[in-house]
Parts: sequence; structure tokens; C-alpha cells
Amino acid sequence: MHTRLLEIRQGVLNKNDELAAALRQQFTQAGVFTFNLVSSPGAGKTTFLEKTIRKLTARGYSVAALVGDLETDNDGRRLAATGIPVKQIQTAGNCHLEANMIQHFIADWDINAFQFLFIENVGNLVCPSSYDLGEAIRVVLLSTTEGEDKPLKYPPMFNSSDVAIITKIDLAEAVEFDRQTALANLHKIHPGIPVFEVSAKRDIGIDAWLDFIIEQRESCLNTS
Amino acid sequence: MHTRLLEIRQGVLNKNDELAAALRQQFTQAGVFTFNLVSSPGAGKTTFLEKTIRKLTARGYSVAALVGDLETDNDGRRLAATGIPVKQIQTAGNCHLEANMIQHFIADWDINAFQFLFIENVGNLVCPSSYDLGEAIRVVLLSTTEGEDKPLKYPPMFNSSDVAIITKIDLAEAVEFDRQTALANLHKIHPGIPVFEVSAKRDIGIDAWLDFIIEQRESCLNTS
Repeated sequence: MHTRLLEIRQGVLNKNDELAAALRQQFTQAGVFTFNLVSSPGAGKTTFLEKTIRKLTARGYSVAALVGDLETDNDGRRLAATGIPVKQIQTAGNCHLEANMIQHFIADWDINAFQFLFIENVGNLVCPSSYDLGEAIRVVLLSTTEGEDKPLKYPPMFNSSDVAIITKIDLAEAVEFDRQTALANLHKIHPGIPVFEVSAKRDIGIDAWLDFIIEQRESCLNTS
Repeated sequence: MHTRLLEIRQGVLNKNDELAAALRQQFTQAGVFTFNLVSSPGAGKTTFLEKTIRKLTARGYSVAALVGDLETDNDGRRLAATGIPVKQIQTAGNCHLEANMIQHFIADWDINAFQFLFIENVGNLVCPSSYDLGEAIRVVLLSTTEGEDKPLKYPPMFNSSDVAIITKIDLAEAVEFDRQTALANLHKIHPGIPVFEVSAKRDIGIDAWLDFIIEQRESCLNTS
């Protein structure tokens, strides 16, 4: 029973990977630089994205977002308030987004019009790690309030991500966040991963993050 | 493909439910009152359990614990430092504990010797909701730092739990926690669920929680 389940799961994953590869090619050709944001629930993905989007659009960039949740369209509505095109994907109990959901929800968008597409995954440090969505960059968020040990406890997520964001650094002192240990744990699981320490609420570290993604987009897509 | 996957998953779940029912009967007969603690990563399950265990043993109760994680035995070691029997279950990528893991790991314990057994599930607000472990009480933890909307976004977990714990209330002011909204959201998803507001670090609300579980144990197991 278990072997059969694993085989079928493998089949689903392979199908997802094929579709994700096609999406990645589509995004690259359209010049849209795509991010998949993953974290545990409450790490601050939506607040971080709101700030990122507002600052990117203020700099003149064209941005869109997809938001996954089991239920509710709260996050979608929060992001839509920034004025960019946003779609909420309700996964009806599924603990991750899959490439076919992305394909379905971007189908009636002209993605050539966008320079950045942010996909906010379901809040979960396990399931989303296995599902490529065709993103250029997978971003894992870790809040100072969660504890420094999360990279050690959820290695596939931190290992499969390209960038790590430490959120809520304005609370670091109040929660006695041990920065050195957190960085050591991140680098133990993923040597060399770029880390940004931010507070979206207090606007700390966001501009450095924007400079990074704008530069990454230009070098990856050979545009300017 | 998807239908077949769902059918097989259903089969796995039914098998889990049967085993969980047998475990529940075994726990009841042995007089061991069992808890399944679920939350997102970093909500403070281990710190809450440490405090609960130390206070229960100080009151003369006999306690044991099982701890699930994808990787590491950090939490198991932290709980073992309280002096009670503890086993760490490493799930090797699985996002939840299952009844067969509980059965396997308690096999060489004389559970008649315990009055309380705490099972700390993998940090995840999605997967563990579908897996009964034979517990008497499922406890969902929600930290003030995660945001008030989590019950609305993860209804199966909050609906399937018997008790809710709001953790890190010492940080409520720093994170601008909206208590009324959090309670309203909890009760919208699960009307009447008992809620305890605690800080394990500052020893706030823990004694009320202990009184509750001791009383629950006596009334459920007809012991004293």
C-alpha cells in the first residue's frame, strides 16, 4: 500500500515538474521574474509582499501576485489594495500550490505586461518544498519569533530555497532572537544562501532586498 | 491519476483511524490521558510542554512524551531534560505523525506507569489535522506573533482540535495582538472551544491549564 502510494505520488510530482519547467520557460520569454514565497504560517509573507510591491511599483515596475491559502481571500484582498493585479488561489485543504494551479490562474493575464510576479504559497514549512512552480527564485521567510532552529528542523525547505528572509527583526530583542545561531543554522543547511534581515512594518532592510531582486532580474533575464 | 491517489489516501487514512481507535482504548484502560499538540512551526509547543511537564511532575504526576520532527532530536532533548521518559520520532520528511508511529514508539514502555502522555506533533497547520493519534485531547497552539487570522485560514486544524492555547501573550503588546479578533476567529471556526492564554516563559496562565487537564483526566477516565 505504502509503496504504491509513493509511486503514484512520484508520478504526480514528475508531472508537476514538467509543467513547472514549461512555465519557467514561458516566464523567461515574457520577461517576468517570478518568486515563490514559502514560510510557516504567520511568518509575515503578506506584510513583506505588500511592502515589496508598494516600493517596486513606486520605482516604476509592473508587478502581479498570486496568493495561495486553504481558505479565505484575506491575503489576496490585502495585496490587491496595493493596486496591482492579484488572484487568490484557494487550495481547499491542499497544503501547497502546484504548477497546474499557477498555469490556470495566469491563463487570462497578459504576463508580458509584468516585470515581477510574486507567488505567495500556503503557509507551511513542509509540503511546498516538493512542488516547483516555475519560479526563478524561491524565497523562504523565517521570523525572529519562530526560533533559530527552524532550518535544522525543516531542511528540505531551507535547502531548496534560493534566498532567506529573516522577518520581524524589530522584535528581535523582545523575543531574545539569537542572530548568530540563526545564521549558522541557515548556512549549515544551505551554505552561502543570501540572507536579508528585514522589518516590513518598520521599513528596515526592504530597499536592500529590492536592489537585489532588480539586479537579479536584469542579470537572469538579460534585460535592463 | 488524482482520483486514484485520493482513493489510496483514503485507504491509508481509514487504516490510521482504526489503529488510533485501538490506541485510544489502550490509553483509557491504562489510565494514561493523552494529548496531541499541533501548531505551526515556532508557535512554542516545546517551551509550553517543558513548563507543563515540570509543573505536573512537581505536583506528583507521572508523565511521558513523544516528539515528532522531520529532522533533529533538539526538542526531544529539551523535553528529556525535565527528567521524564521521552522519545523523539523523526518522520524523514513526513509532515505529520501517524498512529502506527505512536504504536511503535510506545511498544517498550509500560504505559500503565503514566498518568499523562504528551505527543508533540510536527509543526504544521495542515497535515496533522487528518491523522488521529488516539489522543483524548487535541490541543492547537496559536502564538500572538502569528496573527489573528490563522483559525480562518486553517479551519480543519482549529475545527478538529478540542482546546486552543494562545502562546507568547507576554509579546501581545509588542506585536499589537488583537485579542478580541483572535478569539472571535477561534469561535467562528470552533464555537465554544476552550481557550487558554499563556506565556510559558513568564509562567502566565499555566496553572489554569494544569487545573483544567487534571480535572479533564479525572472526569474522562473516572479516576482521581
